[in-house]
Amino acid sequence: MDSLFADRINDVPRSFIREILKVALDPSVISFAGGLPNREFFPAEELQQATEQVFALQGRDLFQYSSSEGFLPLREWIAKRYRDTQGLDISADSILITSGSQQGLDLLGKVLLNEGDGLLMEAPGYLGAIQAFSIYRPEFLNVAVNEQGMVLEELDRQLQGTSPKLAYTVPNFQNPSGISYSDANRQAVAERLKGKNCILIEDNPYGDLRFSGDPVASFYNRLPEQTVLLGSFSKCVIPGFRLGWMVAPEPLMQKLLVAKQATDLHTSHFTQCIVHQYLMNHDIDAHLKTIIDAYGSQCRAMMAAMDRHFPDTVHYTRPDGGMFLWASLPESLSAMALFELAVKQQVVFVPGDPFYTDRSNSSTLRLSFSCVDAETIDVGIERLGRAMGEMLAK
Amino acid sequence: MDSLFADRINDVPRSFIREILKVALDPSVISFAGGLPNREFFPAEELQQATEQVFALQGRDLFQYSSSEGFLPLREWIAKRYRDTQGLDISADSILITSGSQQGLDLLGKVLLNEGDGLLMEAPGYLGAIQAFSIYRPEFLNVAVNEQGMVLEELDRQLQGTSPKLAYTVPNFQNPSGISYSDANRQAVAERLKGKNCILIEDNPYGDLRFSGDPVASFYNRLPEQTVLLGSFSKCVIPGFRLGWMVAPEPLMQKLLVAKQATDLHTSHFTQCIVHQYLMNHDIDAHLKTIIDAYGSQCRAMMAAMDRHFPDTVHYTRPDGGMFLWASLPESLSAMALFELAVKQQVVFVPGDPFYTDRSNSSTLRLSFSCVDAETIDVGIERLGRAMGEMLAK
Repeated sequence: MDSLFADRINDVPRSFIREILKVALDPSVISFAGGLPNREFFPAEELQQATEQVFALQGRDLFQYSSSEGFLPLREWIAKRYRDTQGLDISADSILITSGSQQGLDLLGKVLLNEGDGLLMEAPGYLGAIQAFSIYRPEFLNVAVNEQGMVLEELDRQLQGTSPKLAYTVPNFQNPSGISYSDANRQAVAERLKGKNCILIEDNPYGDLRFSGDPVASFYNRLPEQTVLLGSFSKCVIPGFRLGWMVAPEPLMQKLLVAKQATDLHTSHFTQCIVHQYLMNHDIDAHLKTIIDAYGSQCRAMMAAMDRHFPDTVHYTRPDGGMFLWASLPESLSAMALFELAVKQQVVFVPGDPFYTDRSNSSTLRLSFSCVDAETIDVGIERLGRAMGEMLAK
Repeated sequence: MDSLFADRINDVPRSFIREILKVALDPSVISFAGGLPNREFFPAEELQQATEQVFALQGRDLFQYSSSEGFLPLREWIAKRYRDTQGLDISADSILITSGSQQGLDLLGKVLLNEGDGLLMEAPGYLGAIQAFSIYRPEFLNVAVNEQGMVLEELDRQLQGTSPKLAYTVPNFQNPSGISYSDANRQAVAERLKGKNCILIEDNPYGDLRFSGDPVASFYNRLPEQTVLLGSFSKCVIPGFRLGWMVAPEPLMQKLLVAKQATDLHTSHFTQCIVHQYLMNHDIDAHLKTIIDAYGSQCRAMMAAMDRHFPDTVHYTRPDGGMFLWASLPESLSAMALFELAVKQQVVFVPGDPFYTDRSNSSTLRLSFSCVDAETIDVGIERLGRAMGEMLAK
């Protein structure tokens, strides 16, 4: 049967994150490996109430096939939110509801990428984006990110002689590294892409989860005609409904709609109505504050524990929001090898390899602080520090 | 921006069905154009009750990210249903829950089709399949269908000198034509494909909606190692949740899972739980009987009205189930031209063109009987007969 498969599917990297998550099922193992939002903050009762209201308000139309664009009142809410929180003038017509923002990545690949097209990719970058785009066989043009954002020398080098069609960015509290692009860095990246035949994707699932520092204006302010915004309800309200959205300029939106219809006709109308009702009933900012307070204190606990327990030669990022933190071992050491030692110490993380399109045995690792309380974080980081010590002593 | 688009997206046919559906919004227009299940039969109260139970039973896990394969108890229910109703031995491990069976088509295209690969396609065939596959740029190898199934001479001709990778079939109450493949035809098609490096897709959204005749065994009985089954809850329970499934042999299932993860991570866990709870609480066959009785009597009303009101030179299929019926004008006449006359008579249908990959100005048309009562059907068919008479008189 192997000869049946399309070439494209063999390009998609398999991730070993699933295998890691199996190790993490052992309750004696402390896991910093997951990428899940903390279930304690799901507004369960509120969503149940919203569901009851939706049943009462909508009747049978709730269950019928619906529009590919998505539920208009929900798109209007999103447009208003962009206006209220970021001052962006985005019309509901420019918004397409997707089955999670992961689907937005698939649709962009479908509509924009011919085989071999250049795609600027953060290194490290979001694994789900690497997987979604790999299907369409682009040439990944990797650009390192650091605590300012994209490394501009690397961006300049990649732009010499190539005309990338897409640039993929997570400028706020990036997955996997937790870094954010500074204002100056966004400006510099935008200037380099301005006027080129290139779409910049600003994927922003974590933007609302800022626990320190000041917000920085979106790429949309700098490159409105070339920017596609991806958003998600997964991190701020609920992941299991699979609801996200994309904002795209008109001619691209028409093509995205064709692709959306061909892909799954439309996203569940029922869950769109429930989330809309929830947003009508509740103060989302109050809800966000609860999550932000918890993630912020957990992140601070993780950084403090690292200060105490990690060898001096191990460096790590200091996120202002989101769910992830990124550590770097001395370059000669492999995070995969550390993983083996860490499992014995009953602590797990995700080694950095899957977050690069071109690297193995990297010396970096992702740690998530979203689902672990401060006390457990300290124990887990101490264990991990011990494993690092063992490794360095070899 | 046009130069940005991938070649594949320009291959996807735009359908004018959306435009037709706009005409159909006028309440004085009788529409046989829609492809919607009848909303009267959505089990609204039962789904509401199931939702309440799911909230009570599952707690917060209901809202978390979930497995790409889908909710195991729902997959087990589907496996049992295949066993109970068709005697098929299918394990839950061979079942992947999809965001509607439309997504199954997209995933199959992703995993199997290289550009230019041969794909046997029914003519006329399901528009959504033409759209989903077009994204992956196959060579469509069209095979006419008639009231027995695939026209074997055409199938033989297409198999000479080509090695299609996929064969797409809707053997029960096909959309758009309402025809079903006979037992002998299935056997003949299966024998021709057996042992070839070719996957046969049996898309079966309407199979449970049989109102006359006897069930015919699935392709899965004849070609188990080469058959992929697609199923859907859209026509029998609820379309708006976007829930379908696929059954595939093991090595293909592994690739489909990779593609599913890259496409949308997983299908909404919440809606899967609700449908599963509904199926646990209720006798699905009793529910199906209600739908079948209604669609059967509406189909008979449509056929009787056609006998009365259509010119003798117009032919039409006599479905044993499903939602659609297919009419053929004398070959020199265009269904698009008839459409213009029909709108003036305040009745609409879908001209046949979008159901072919290679035809325009076809003389065929699709009529849906699912959402129109018998009395209105008679009025609408009389109007359409009048438009046909006008056309023939020209």
